[in-house]
Amino acid sequence: MSHRDNAAARRPAVGVDLGGTKIAAALVAADGSVLARASAPTPAAAGPAAILDAIAALAARVAGGADVRGLGLGAAGVIDPGSCRVVDATDVLPGWPGTDLRSGLLRRLSGLVPRVEAVNDVHAHALGEAWLGAGRHARTALLVAFGTGIGGSYIVGGRPAVGAHAVAGHVGHVPSAEAAGLECTCGGSGHLEAVASGPAVHRRYLAAGGDPAAEDTRAVFDRAAGGDALAASAIATAARAAGGALGGFANALDPHAIVVSGGLAAAGRLWWDPLLAAYAANVVGALSATVPTRALLGADAAVVGGASLILRD
Amino acid sequence: MSHRDNAAARRPAVGVDLGGTKIAAALVAADGSVLARASAPTPAAAGPAAILDAIAALAARVAGGADVRGLGLGAAGVIDPGSCRVVDATDVLPGWPGTDLRSGLLRRLSGLVPRVEAVNDVHAHALGEAWLGAGRHARTALLVAFGTGIGGSYIVGGRPAVGAHAVAGHVGHVPSAEAAGLECTCGGSGHLEAVASGPAVHRRYLAAGGDPAAEDTRAVFDRAAGGDALAASAIATAARAAGGALGGFANALDPHAIVVSGGLAAAGRLWWDPLLAAYAANVVGALSATVPTRALLGADAAVVGGASLILRD
Repeated sequence: MSHRDNAAARRPAVGVDLGGTKIAAALVAADGSVLARASAPTPAAAGPAAILDAIAALAARVAGGADVRGLGLGAAGVIDPGSCRVVDATDVLPGWPGTDLRSGLLRRLSGLVPRVEAVNDVHAHALGEAWLGAGRHARTALLVAFGTGIGGSYIVGGRPAVGAHAVAGHVGHVPSAEAAGLECTCGGSGHLEAVASGPAVHRRYLAAGGDPAAEDTRAVFDRAAGGDALAASAIATAARAAGGALGGFANALDPHAIVVSGGLAAAGRLWWDPLLAAYAANVVGALSATVPTRALLGADAAVVGGASLILRD
Repeated sequence: MSHRDNAAARRPAVGVDLGGTKIAAALVAADGSVLARASAPTPAAAGPAAILDAIAALAARVAGGADVRGLGLGAAGVIDPGSCRVVDATDVLPGWPGTDLRSGLLRRLSGLVPRVEAVNDVHAHALGEAWLGAGRHARTALLVAFGTGIGGSYIVGGRPAVGAHAVAGHVGHVPSAEAAGLECTCGGSGHLEAVASGPAVHRRYLAAGGDPAAEDTRAVFDRAAGGDALAASAIATAARAAGGALGGFANALDPHAIVVSGGLAAAGRLWWDPLLAAYAANVVGALSATVPTRALLGADAAVVGGASLILRD
């Protein structure tokens, strides 16, 4: 490597995490450390052009005149990493499908950003954890995020396995005995997400006769911590389903690391204890040493993972 | 490539499929066509040395003095493809764990076979189908075999993804609502294999009050074809569980092809119709074009796939 190549390899990249409600951007050094951060609400209702404008403005702000190698974006929706086009998306971002993220951002950031790469936001999150977080040093890492929805990403040799149609990672849409008969957001029924997502815990608690004043999933966890048996039961059922599904993924894929993230992963032992017990009960003997662990990077995971599309290529 | 390299690349390889009851061997040309076949019972009770002796004898017989490039073995048990050692195995092959397949076969076939590679037999089966069968032209192919047990293999770029401990492919050990409460061969409960394997269909039929004279799974299928509603119901439940699990795998992995094999795949529409309906009900919209198809190579799949370890390296 020449002196000039070395200098180029040390330049930072911009990482962006585009969600349904918030855009986060960071300037990320070649070693993955975050040099600057900025965020803004997602102008979801204003359409794709407004969203790309907002991303470009945040990118320019965090770059602050630095000589950046490129921009790596983790975006809501099904994203084709080759073309950087949005293949599919939910109603959270109206008009989002079909958007050409690469050309839209290169045009807006002409002269500032020479290159744009993009993946789905859960894949970006997993890339960050696999690089510098709980999946560090693991050749293959399965990350599963339990939050408003349940999504995942299988990182193999530093890249997300996105599959034939960039759809891989819909790990919330696998059969779960605990979800039998429950409708799923995907239109199917009986899927893990229908019992083990945050909103599913809230619904189950209310349906079981829980306190109607509990306005969200967090309130259910608060009540469980305070001794509400119905709340603890709804959480335990969700966690058992989650642990069983993770055990099944371990048996099918035998990943080097299993990383658990999302809002529920922050909920403490009320959720983790039944999850780990169900995992252990489902995993085949030869895998007893593979134990799910909690994600480490928090909110930085997706911006660092996004930037890794540029920095580690 | 020199003339000599070209000639070397045209030489055949020996493929071997070692199961619990039978060993099949074939001489396989560079294009995958089978030039000679032989088989023998597996001397399971006689131990690993006797099994290796039997494999070597069959290999020598099919090679028939040909200048072979090597021997590729698909073997029962958990096989580490790097070391070609048996990591783990069930009681079907007593003493099998720890066996060094590569050195054991190279010693026995000295001067005849310059190289030995080995994988688990389901992986070998999938390698054959991914090369020349139902997964032909697919960059990634998930094969699932439904028989006495349920096993699978995810072929990525011509190689089986064997995971961190060579355990990947235990796809019968994922949660299934239809299997809730049923004990599994792995020691767990509620797994797909407990409801959707061949023996599970037979057990379910008898437990539901079916004709005790039905001595095996085939007899249950015969009765279902003859109008026995209990038999049809046991088969449909197994097939629904199988289709749901395949839908979940599709959602999680988005493979280019899904190939179904094993004894149950030969059972006709009584099994395939509910399987495909359950698959369609579980798969997310973007994957509706990915439809499970039946394996094509039959009994040759594993010997061809085994030989591919040498021929396609």
